Amino acid sequence: MKKVIFAIFAAGALGASGAEYLTSPDGRLRAEVWTNDSGTPMYSLTFDGDTVVRPSRLGLLGDRYDFDRWFDIASTERSSADTVWRPVWGEFAEVRDNHNELAVLLREDMSRRTGNEVVAEKVPKEFVIRFRLFNDGLGFRYEFPNQGGWPYLRVKKELTEFNLPESPMMYCIPGDNNTDEYLWTIAPMDSLETAFRAYGNHTESNRLPELSVQTPLLMKMRTGRKDVKPLYVNIHEADLRDYGVLNLAVDTVANSLTSRVIEDKMGYVAYFELPFHTPWRTVMVADNAPGILASQLVYNLNEPCAIGDTSWIKPQKYVGVWWEMFLGDGRTWAYSDSITARPGTDYTRVKPNGRHAANAANVRRYIDFAAENGIPGVLVEGWNEGWEDWTSYRKNRHFDFTKAYPDFPVDSLTAYAASRGVKLIMHHETGANAADYDFQMDSAFRFMNRHGYEAVKTGYVGELIPRSENHGSQWFVDHVLRVAKKAADYHIMVDSHEAPRPTGLGRTYPNWMAQESARGTEFEAMQGNPPYHTTVLPFTRLKGGPMDYTPGIFEPRMSTYGGQYTHNCGTTLARQLALYLTMPSPFQMVCDLPENYRKHPDAFEFIKAVPVDWKDSRYIAAEPGDYITVARQDKHSDDWYVGAITDENAREAEIPLDFLTPGVTYEATIYADAPDADWQTNPVAYRISTKKVTSRSRLRQRLAPGGGCAIRLVPLPR
Amino acid sequence: MKKVIFAIFAAGALGASGAEYLTSPDGRLRAEVWTNDSGTPMYSLTFDGDTVVRPSRLGLLGDRYDFDRWFDIASTERSSADTVWRPVWGEFAEVRDNHNELAVLLREDMSRRTGNEVVAEKVPKEFVIRFRLFNDGLGFRYEFPNQGGWPYLRVKKELTEFNLPESPMMYCIPGDNNTDEYLWTIAPMDSLETAFRAYGNHTESNRLPELSVQTPLLMKMRTGRKDVKPLYVNIHEADLRDYGVLNLAVDTVANSLTSRVIEDKMGYVAYFELPFHTPWRTVMVADNAPGILASQLVYNLNEPCAIGDTSWIKPQKYVGVWWEMFLGDGRTWAYSDSITARPGTDYTRVKPNGRHAANAANVRRYIDFAAENGIPGVLVEGWNEGWEDWTSYRKNRHFDFTKAYPDFPVDSLTAYAASRGVKLIMHHETGANAADYDFQMDSAFRFMNRHGYEAVKTGYVGELIPRSENHGSQWFVDHVLRVAKKAADYHIMVDSHEAPRPTGLGRTYPNWMAQESARGTEFEAMQGNPPYHTTVLPFTRLKGGPMDYTPGIFEPRMSTYGGQYTHNCGTTLARQLALYLTMPSPFQMVCDLPENYRKHPDAFEFIKAVPVDWKDSRYIAAEPGDYITVARQDKHSDDWYVGAITDENAREAEIPLDFLTPGVTYEATIYADAPDADWQTNPVAYRISTKKVTSRSRLRQRLAPGGGCAIRLVPLPR
Repeated sequence: MKKVIFAIFAAGALGASGAEYLTSPDGRLRAEVWTNDSGTPMYSLTFDGDTVVRPSRLGLLGDRYDFDRWFDIASTERSSADTVWRPVWGEFAEVRDNHNELAVLLREDMSRRTGNEVVAEKVPKEFVIRFRLFNDGLGFRYEFPNQGGWPYLRVKKELTEFNLPESPMMYCIPGDNNTDEYLWTIAPMDSLETAFRAYGNHTESNRLPELSVQTPLLMKMRTGRKDVKPLYVNIHEADLRDYGVLNLAVDTVANSLTSRVIEDKMGYVAYFELPFHTPWRTVMVADNAPGILASQLVYNLNEPCAIGDTSWIKPQKYVGVWWEMFLGDGRTWAYSDSITARPGTDYTRVKPNGRHAANAANVRRYIDFAAENGIPGVLVEGWNEGWEDWTSYRKNRHFDFTKAYPDFPVDSLTAYAASRGVKLIMHHETGANAADYDFQMDSAFRFMNRHGYEAVKTGYVGELIPRSENHGSQWFVDHVLRVAKKAADYHIMVDSHEAPRPTGLGRTYPNWMAQESARGTEFEAMQGNPPYHTTVLPFTRLKGGPMDYTPGIFEPRMSTYGGQYTHNCGTTLARQLALYLTMPSPFQMVCDLPENYRKHPDAFEFIKAVPVDWKDSRYIAAEPGDYITVARQDKHSDDWYVGAITDENAREAEIPLDFLTPGVTYEATIYADAPDADWQTNPVAYRISTKKVTSRSRLRQRLAPGGGCAIRLVPLPR
Repeated sequence: MKKVIFAIFAAGALGASGAEYLTSPDGRLRAEVWTNDSGTPMYSLTFDGDTVVRPSRLGLLGDRYDFDRWFDIASTERSSADTVWRPVWGEFAEVRDNHNELAVLLREDMSRRTGNEVVAEKVPKEFVIRFRLFNDGLGFRYEFPNQGGWPYLRVKKELTEFNLPESPMMYCIPGDNNTDEYLWTIAPMDSLETAFRAYGNHTESNRLPELSVQTPLLMKMRTGRKDVKPLYVNIHEADLRDYGVLNLAVDTVANSLTSRVIEDKMGYVAYFELPFHTPWRTVMVADNAPGILASQLVYNLNEPCAIGDTSWIKPQKYVGVWWEMFLGDGRTWAYSDSITARPGTDYTRVKPNGRHAANAANVRRYIDFAAENGIPGVLVEGWNEGWEDWTSYRKNRHFDFTKAYPDFPVDSLTAYAASRGVKLIMHHETGANAADYDFQMDSAFRFMNRHGYEAVKTGYVGELIPRSENHGSQWFVDHVLRVAKKAADYHIMVDSHEAPRPTGLGRTYPNWMAQESARGTEFEAMQGNPPYHTTVLPFTRLKGGPMDYTPGIFEPRMSTYGGQYTHNCGTTLARQLALYLTMPSPFQMVCDLPENYRKHPDAFEFIKAVPVDWKDSRYIAAEPGDYITVARQDKHSDDWYVGAITDENAREAEIPLDFLTPGVTYEATIYADAPDADWQTNPVAYRISTKKVTSRSRLRQRLAPGGGCAIRLVPLPR
């Protein structure tokens, strides 16, 4: 592992007009940092000399002290690093962290303090802004060292600007205190307001009052010129802890984005004590769309793995007693229809509704199916007391995480799973009562240890308790992190739903395998996700960490109870196979019913074989909103896999196989849309073919409207 | 145990004009219940025919449904009970519960619904008001059975009135969202507003905006007549759970009190799901002051003991590393003066301040002192990481309840205590971060079990996290109860400070031994408590459960670090002995420094001997704000003890000993103020004398200004 660090300490400013410069290792990105006439820290960013971010302000406002004006650059610290680290799981076995760093120490000019500042301190305020420039983008964060006699700050507003050189194409979802489960708007910034009117009120919506977008945000710029390629720019954050979630307020006149961090209901972004640092604000830049998909910038800005022995962390596929609850045939999470039944009720005296999915026989069916098909995990939702009524916020106790319904015999099901070589996966839906989950957590995790559950899917559907908190506020950000940390103490893997979207903490706490935090496959069952949805997610949501997208639909034609047709999912069957490549996750569901998989055992072979942990990944072709083609090498064999998806348009995917080992012949098994397949009219039609290929081969594969293809490449013995 | 229950079910109203009547078993109290022309439920209360409560409204307002008008009494249910129960600890070995009960079922007249009511239900709203009349007072509560299709209610306002027949003398503290640590105002209701101006802003104050008082409230009425004795009336609540704390808004023109329940910051009193009942609202009535002191009304309205095996619950006295932190000599809870040191810091690298009280040598001193004097417990405050800065609300992690400072060697101190037959008492100050305490509780209690700690003193100083909550709001009421319940699972006894004042739950969860929840002895050290303070507390604060008043001051002359005199505590030494009788608690501190006790070993003999659990209690004489004389019999021997205290006036206490067993001679050891003792000028001067007495004896004991006397009566062998 090559590791070269240079540290150069410099007092005072360098460069003309007091600006500091920082370049990426390859010199193509260049950041400039200075303070303007008001002593406001400023920065700008260029790529090959073209503006990515115009001069933009930095700073934040606290309840006692402001950090926005009257500062000078007192000193700087520079360093460089070029190291390689190994993730426990991911798209790559090794990740290179090559960056140049500039930390500017900003010191207040006390002579410029205005009258209404709290002049409690006889020493000037100080803070640091640390910049790191990689070849694939910029990261910067605010740091507050111990100073003076004040140990706290309540942050009221962060003032980070991203002033853009033009009105970019935005791939975004609207700013919201609580939910990120939106379809993607693809629109130029200056027509965003109109485009957002297309959103009705999502059940969980709590939209920010101002025009705003969430992060990760993708933008496409520099499209008007013929001499250069367009620029793809992703804004997100890394290492989010102790702070609210980053949204961005949009000024369509100035083509400007400004940090709009989610607050608690008391109006504060963060309560912090010194020393303190904010999350990194990240700006990924690439002149090709695959460059964004491949970027590991966010992970590179996170802390190394904090868990010593990671042998208990097992990437896996799983099936689950779950999908059936969405299929409109009346199967329930709840044991009964009695609204008075709740945790603590004597459920043996409650009349079962006869439609409870998590019953022993059904669970054993899924265990059998998993065992027969080499799938290690079985999730069971609806196993525990409380599902009859779990309305958030309006009641104080929702679930008991140690009390099973009468038809879910904990011990015998654990034993049955073990006898079949399968593990049951725990489910902790909290009804957004995070405070009660904090209280129950030790009992809940001890229960898991005692009964052989190694992984848990958590959920926070609804409005949060503590009632002062939003899903995006600091307290809840901290809550979900302490869940992951405590789970690690118990050797438990976590897949969190309705939690703040990930920001690369899967590097530091690799037991935190996946999150939902975007609109997933459950919406396919409920309404359908238009095919372009999954051609955007990898450019946005996935840049902070894996999504538990729960693919694997083999029957995309949805109907209600009674058989009345409602809609098709936005997919063909072959596309669902491809999603195992384009939506990679170390915790990956095989979502459909066993009976649907049994209808297409040949196609199911792909799902059985596809790995969930990768040695290498090659983004072959991509355009956000249109298509993605990616190849990945299994971490534990020499097999390669390819996935290609398209939007509602049919497309020819060009797939050069130059990633294969030269001189080796591979058998390619190609799972493709049938020629007449179409997500709207003929979604299930697929064709499987095989051919021998080498690194010189070039495949061309037609993708149906809303379709895709998946390829497995196995080296043949010589 | 005599147990006679009659239940009579009656449909329809009885009595003239549709009113229902209920009398106490002795017939002296009479309640009337009806609905007025608007269908508002009403009640009134008389004692010997004199009005105690004029016609007053009942009801409450919810967010969707109101329960205040358009109701009729649909049916009633009557029952009686005369039973005896045995508390695990208390003032009495047996308590009689003799009451008549009337439950009225109120049903909405749907034809009278107004337009803006949510007419979602096709069935009439229903609720029950249940009344119990005892010889010593009234209790009533609201009950909401399952009904219609609506399972929740958010209570916005409770409308319970107590309309009084005159402007009573009030013994009260001002209404407050957060704190009850106030001195008592004794003033007529119509001059309350003026009287309350005497209060500055207490550090923790969050005063209710309207003129209001807290409960327990004492009032004295019917003082203008010569033919009858005055009436003493205490308003409080019993069995407080799942609801905010009862305060009372005061209308000085109408001589009226109306429930003003503490809300969360979102503006709600309670979020409840059906079926649900509110706490009992209690109105103790007595025509003699001792009758209030002796009343067990609040306990009688609570649920029986919910803990099966209570053998691990041990009433006890305890000393503590605590008082010295208040004495102004610079001793600290904190290990260092470093504001950056906090839980997780490597404290071995932090410079100790040399004044940390909870160090091993000092703790051993207290263990030795306790062992030498037969005191089973030693509390240690400041043992754990976090004390350098525990400012509430403005930070997110305050303490770690499993990490000791470097100079507090957990294992060796546990071993030392065990070798001396003493138990260390744990301290969990939370800095009002109740949410974090919920998260740490299992770890904290496991730590206690592992290291031999059987009891914990908890604290919630400051502004609460969750930031949506007040100390008086439902969420926090529920928090402190779940602490007690979880502690019981771990066989841990609890003494909670800054928690909502008790409401008799010590009957149901007797491991919940005591609470502070009023202004205690720590204020003696800080400012002084005027002597009348403890002549009021037993009439008010103690009516819901014991107070950890922490008496035992042997050196009442306070000075700052460096020896400068500041003030005297509001007490003589002899009075401090008496407080062990007048402020009874199963968890009772011996607060002063060992060296101060060693100055007066003869007086200390009383504290060594005085029990903390009683077979019987006789309130011999009392007047709120003036004096209290009480005798109690040790539960575990035939000894009797007497305590008498006075306010700032010297007083002769008349003490007939007719509670002694006739025909037995007792040796009385009398610990009295010296003739020239005075709390302001000569507080330590005391005299000890002995005499032989019988049940026919009558003692007369002079109490100094701010003084008291304590008597131990031991039967002599025949």
